[in-house]
Amino acid sequence: MSMLTFVGLGIYDEKDISLKGLEAVKQADLVFAEFYTSPLAGRRLERMEEIYGKKIIVLNRKDLEEKAEEGILKEAKDKNVVLLSAGDPMIATTHVDLMLRAMEMGIKTRVIHASSIVSAVAGVCGLQIYKFGRSATVSPPFGSTISEVPYETVLENRRRGLHTLLFLDVGMKISEALELLEEVERRRERAGKEAGILKEVLFVGVARAGSETQVVKADYADALKRFDFGEPPHVLVAVGELHFMEKEALVRLASAPI
Amino acid sequence: MSMLTFVGLGIYDEKDISLKGLEAVKQADLVFAEFYTSPLAGRRLERMEEIYGKKIIVLNRKDLEEKAEEGILKEAKDKNVVLLSAGDPMIATTHVDLMLRAMEMGIKTRVIHASSIVSAVAGVCGLQIYKFGRSATVSPPFGSTISEVPYETVLENRRRGLHTLLFLDVGMKISEALELLEEVERRRERAGKEAGILKEVLFVGVARAGSETQVVKADYADALKRFDFGEPPHVLVAVGELHFMEKEALVRLASAPI
Repeated sequence: MSMLTFVGLGIYDEKDISLKGLEAVKQADLVFAEFYTSPLAGRRLERMEEIYGKKIIVLNRKDLEEKAEEGILKEAKDKNVVLLSAGDPMIATTHVDLMLRAMEMGIKTRVIHASSIVSAVAGVCGLQIYKFGRSATVSPPFGSTISEVPYETVLENRRRGLHTLLFLDVGMKISEALELLEEVERRRERAGKEAGILKEVLFVGVARAGSETQVVKADYADALKRFDFGEPPHVLVAVGELHFMEKEALVRLASAPI
Repeated sequence: MSMLTFVGLGIYDEKDISLKGLEAVKQADLVFAEFYTSPLAGRRLERMEEIYGKKIIVLNRKDLEEKAEEGILKEAKDKNVVLLSAGDPMIATTHVDLMLRAMEMGIKTRVIHASSIVSAVAGVCGLQIYKFGRSATVSPPFGSTISEVPYETVLENRRRGLHTLLFLDVGMKISEALELLEEVERRRERAGKEAGILKEVLFVGVARAGSETQVVKADYADALKRFDFGEPPHVLVAVGELHFMEKEALVRLASAPI
């Protein structure tokens, strides 16, 4: 049967795919994957092909955006096509957009969900999911421009006692993200804007969540910046007000200095 | 090797467990499961035992809370024990607490993540994950007392243009949740508190997310209350400001009347 199935690979390695996802891959005529919206992390393409028993064709941004109609969508009109991506497939708006375009072309679509840092991060840090405010992404500077959105998001959530999940740009390290936040803080101080969170807010750095080598460490920005988390993927959590159970968990799971 | 592994069963049925989770189950000496923090949904115990190739012992709240030390934790001191639960295992604070107690007893612990409504819901509705504010849970009345927290959370997020994920108590239906929100609104109006969201806010009801019978429907409270979503699990999303891409997706994926 012809259709386009979005299959999530899950949080870290080849074995974080679900049984349902693996079945979809095995039944597919063509298996594509993309790793620009979300990283390979602990996956190796050869291992994936070996475990899933299929050849995997890696697509880039152009293939999924400008060129989708003459590529993956064209194939899905008369083949059973799977698109693999890290984490939960529908976190990336690119995939939602691709699904809508497929629907417009009369292509049957399906989504097979998987584990994601979005839902895993709370438990990894021992924080409560309903105490997370909106999230934001720390992106590399564009020329001399650095987005203040992540900094403002932390400020805004903190005012309400909420935690903030900060996604880091693919490949970015916690130390780089904290340095960008520091630069934003310096600029805001010079501009007389509200600032001062980096000395007051406890951050939790999470590296390789869901892996055997996962590292979770809580500290203030200046100390955390010098902590060696090893290889990405990395994310950061800015901690809001702590329930006593969260406090205990943060000490036990992230050696928080509190 | 003796240890306690928390394995997520994922979003809906027996096949939403990850390959890694299945391996942990197969290697376990004892496999427990609990379905009071998060529902069985599309799972059947017999199907799980058949597919996973293990006998599964279902535990209740008492077994995991007051009686854990003489039960599951005692077993994990010298056996390889797995605890299965729906969704991502660490969303439930009960499991974080159990993990900390295990660590105190010197028991090695491990978490194997899985798909969760927390990360899946955005894509299911076509909404952007970073535009979700804090979430809340709609619980049944306690005597004549109805929690105003879900209502206030929607108000607070809406002020900032954010979406709100409302978890429903295990087994609760969207219609019941909306009726509770309506009762809260009536009480707030009588008390002269800020109210009036139920006529103005677009809600998205999601039933059986991640299943073949998933239903996603967006409408205003009064109409949505009368829509037949079928069996739980159900969740609700209160929509904030919509990006044009979200608007298009909400129309296509949830037949939003906008």
